[in-house]
Amino acid sequence: MERIVDFIGGESGPWAVRKLTPIIGESLPKVDFISIIPSSSDNPKEGLWRIRGVRSNLRYTEKSEESTLLSVQADLGRPEARLAALIPIRKSETWWKLAQDERREIFEADSGHIKRGLKYLPAIARRLFHCRDFEEQFDFMTWFEYSSKDSDLFEELVAELRETQEWKYVERELDIRLIKI
Amino acid sequence: MERIVDFIGGESGPWAVRKLTPIIGESLPKVDFISIIPSSSDNPKEGLWRIRGVRSNLRYTEKSEESTLLSVQADLGRPEARLAALIPIRKSETWWKLAQDERREIFEADSGHIKRGLKYLPAIARRLFHCRDFEEQFDFMTWFEYSSKDSDLFEELVAELRETQEWKYVERELDIRLIKI
Repeated sequence: MERIVDFIGGESGPWAVRKLTPIIGESLPKVDFISIIPSSSDNPKEGLWRIRGVRSNLRYTEKSEESTLLSVQADLGRPEARLAALIPIRKSETWWKLAQDERREIFEADSGHIKRGLKYLPAIARRLFHCRDFEEQFDFMTWFEYSSKDSDLFEELVAELRETQEWKYVERELDIRLIKI
Repeated sequence: MERIVDFIGGESGPWAVRKLTPIIGESLPKVDFISIIPSSSDNPKEGLWRIRGVRSNLRYTEKSEESTLLSVQADLGRPEARLAALIPIRKSETWWKLAQDERREIFEADSGHIKRGLKYLPAIARRLFHCRDFEEQFDFMTWFEYSSKDSDLFEELVAELRETQEWKYVERELDIRLIKI
């Protein structure tokens, strides 16, 4: 996968949308399919909407946490992991005005973002894309892949994160569930 | 100033290039002027080269450091600060593969990047632009403004930073000196 990609919501693509739910704030137009393609600076001809994101360096994860994650996490693209979720979020200006140590404190010491995620590895594979510095309507998108036997586990993970201190800074969140066709 | 801007090197602009020196690695074509304009996804009609950058959230600065910086630093655009420098750098893949705590350690504990900069405030005003996630040829550009009586101070600052541990990760650096016309 390229570093900068466009998530395109439209009428075709390898992932069929099962459900598109606005969790906080405004929704996006309903679409039937999502495709993930190398980003292009051209205006997209296809699709009802496009969100650009980039895989970037770690922003909060510390070395010891990274080592643990790398030892247990699964890659995207496992054949049995036919279910996916795309969860774009935007955080408030208050969040972005916090200094690095304040954001890290909320992210991990208060909310256990990494620690909570670890419990669901390797069942739930995920990848984070940053959007904020492209002036997109969201700050991040996380893409998750899992098999149908791990559906309940995935529900548990998202429910848990939404209860954290960190989520008080989320001012827009969409939850798109997909299946590989 | 917009959040995402293009630095355009060409034949016109409010800043005249006095000197363009490759410090590490490849140079850029010599130009006579630089202008800073809101970024456009169009290919630039003007200029010999363009570097896109974004003002983003703090990546290493902690709250106490930020408070000190805010209390002493000067804004860009002071009428007496007619000299400027644009210093684009690219860091190695080794740097980018480090975890957040490892990069912070090198940046401040080992290299005193913030602490060293503080000594030169408010004389030297500066602003950091991030380029890496746009897949530019540089990872950052720092823009500095100072008055001619503070020239020696500025030379001291750049010389000091170039001696740090952090600079061992710099694999390309350009130093462009300018004057407001």
